Amino acid sequence: MHADRVARLVASLAGHGLDSVALLPGPNLIYYTGLSFHLMGRPTMAILSADHDPVLLVPELERDKAEAGPLPSQIMSYGEDPASRQAALDQLASGLGLAQRRLGVEPLRMRWFEEQLLRQAAPGVELSSAESVLEPLRAAKTPDELASIERAVGIAEAALLAALPTLRRGMTEREAASEMTLQLLRAGSDPELPFPPIVASGPNAALPHAVPTDRRLQAGDLLIVDWGATVDGYISDLTRTFALGDAAPDWHKVHRAVADANAAGRAAVRPGAPCRDIDLAARSVIEAAGYGPAFLHRTGHGIGLEVHEPPYLRADNDARLTPGMTFTVEPGVYLSGRGGVRIEDNVVVTADGGRTLSHLPRDLVVLA
Amino acid sequence: MHADRVARLVASLAGHGLDSVALLPGPNLIYYTGLSFHLMGRPTMAILSADHDPVLLVPELERDKAEAGPLPSQIMSYGEDPASRQAALDQLASGLGLAQRRLGVEPLRMRWFEEQLLRQAAPGVELSSAESVLEPLRAAKTPDELASIERAVGIAEAALLAALPTLRRGMTEREAASEMTLQLLRAGSDPELPFPPIVASGPNAALPHAVPTDRRLQAGDLLIVDWGATVDGYISDLTRTFALGDAAPDWHKVHRAVADANAAGRAAVRPGAPCRDIDLAARSVIEAAGYGPAFLHRTGHGIGLEVHEPPYLRADNDARLTPGMTFTVEPGVYLSGRGGVRIEDNVVVTADGGRTLSHLPRDLVVLA
Repeated sequence: MHADRVARLVASLAGHGLDSVALLPGPNLIYYTGLSFHLMGRPTMAILSADHDPVLLVPELERDKAEAGPLPSQIMSYGEDPASRQAALDQLASGLGLAQRRLGVEPLRMRWFEEQLLRQAAPGVELSSAESVLEPLRAAKTPDELASIERAVGIAEAALLAALPTLRRGMTEREAASEMTLQLLRAGSDPELPFPPIVASGPNAALPHAVPTDRRLQAGDLLIVDWGATVDGYISDLTRTFALGDAAPDWHKVHRAVADANAAGRAAVRPGAPCRDIDLAARSVIEAAGYGPAFLHRTGHGIGLEVHEPPYLRADNDARLTPGMTFTVEPGVYLSGRGGVRIEDNVVVTADGGRTLSHLPRDLVVLA
Repeated sequence: MHADRVARLVASLAGHGLDSVALLPGPNLIYYTGLSFHLMGRPTMAILSADHDPVLLVPELERDKAEAGPLPSQIMSYGEDPASRQAALDQLASGLGLAQRRLGVEPLRMRWFEEQLLRQAAPGVELSSAESVLEPLRAAKTPDELASIERAVGIAEAALLAALPTLRRGMTEREAASEMTLQLLRAGSDPELPFPPIVASGPNAALPHAVPTDRRLQAGDLLIVDWGATVDGYISDLTRTFALGDAAPDWHKVHRAVADANAAGRAAVRPGAPCRDIDLAARSVIEAAGYGPAFLHRTGHGIGLEVHEPPYLRADNDARLTPGMTFTVEPGVYLSGRGGVRIEDNVVVTADGGRTLSHLPRDLVVLA
């Protein structure tokens, strides 16, 4: 499986003006080599090339793990002293003739740290973004990958249903978020959640990326809960908005508009549709309701091994959907200082349309 | 508090050949601006300078959060379209005269992505590592910071004691790791743990950075548990090793050597001692026991807002300890294919020595 993925990747390198690609710890490294490392202060890197076996650079203490990986690779390791590290890097650079290569990098992974090390070991190396090569290959999910995402959705839904009876006035956002984490793990998520659950109440719900605080939930609040589970590295990402007691009347109107926008966005999903169409479908509902400027972000993002990956459902994205792509549809309205509403589901593109993977109700549920 | 920290930082820039420093989402941004963001696909950055107010570049959807931060700053935000982002970056670059500046970057944070954006907006900007400026300032903890770390240690210890009775043969490493996560949250950790707890059994314990698998715990295994809690962003990081039933006799010898090395490392802590002395103190015990080559990593690393930060206790580090520094002492012995032992404690440098913050027993506890 991993060897096939690497073969597909390296076959497309020349067409993008690249000889090799460097992968750092994270989703691409997992996808192509099956190896999961943390991005830290010790350089760890895979170099994949059309004309050379995969080469892995790892600290000595990761050698066993690298050797146990599913992909036949040449492994270069170094000890704790800088001289040993430089020697391994130099050996890697000369073995591959890296100084004469056009090396693609992951723009959101490759750091100043690794860039300087590469340039030092291979002074002539030509670096450029490998995004256009890497992104399309992972976007359409295989049935196995989709099955993991669906299990992650099911676990997330079970976790919310288990947590809901415990959410009540007087508890803090952080306590509510911890309860969500507990229930996600109990329901069977991998220990590494896609992100710590977000619980945002009252005015904090006006922040699309709120971090749970010590604010206590109180009557009249809207409560945004944004959470997800991980299964075999694949994630889900859902949001529901609740009212604590009576919400002000206009919030019912806002919630209706967001729910309608969510439904319109999901209904627009079909193979061949440009990403912008899904954004437009959702956005136009919110604009018609008079809240256009308060929909502060894109309508959705791809999900898979990453919480944010292609396709991005934005007004300026002409890329077209293909079967197997999985993403969020998550319109929201944010009223600064007052609160907000977001309703987020996960969708897969099918042969002739879209299928929504998540099934929790989308009404404004009032918590006592 | 944050303004004082920024004042100390920018006062030291000129001495390091820098005019400004760029901070990305992460511990330095939290430390200097009080703002916690996730590092994602939307550029988010603070530029701190001796001759200019702090400037924050944030996506529009983070503007409210940025404005609510504790540090008076000039905030530049952009919408979802690339033109708006470029306009904000250009405005930032021209407002600061960035093209003529020597800008320090965080080598382990700044990515290819932000580097390209900066170079495009400010073609002449001179980038270099700000590590030598940033690192020393955060290393010595204030009493408030130390109190958070001590609470994080206490929560981690309570979590282990709560989880221990549930760890038993037949459960998988992943189940055991989930139990640790549950207990950490129940004991009061912030929802974002410093790292997902590591549970490594049998041969997996030979991997210093093992990730929990579906392997079931069985009699004769050594079991390494490496876990920590977060309090107000500050972390703890502990490890203990257990035996499941009877361990082979030589593991008792290994465990004794590692426990003695841990004690020797902690006993060597005092202000003015070079970091290498702590490494040497621990390493020489393991070498004397005949396991030198199996101690695959440094003796410890600083802890604070990051799980790995200065000081690094390595054989080649001449930097000297100062009061308030907090770090791990964590010698280990790893026998490939068989298993391993690691014992990790957290220590603070005091006025005249060191104080160990963690108090769990260091004997080889046998689980039934």
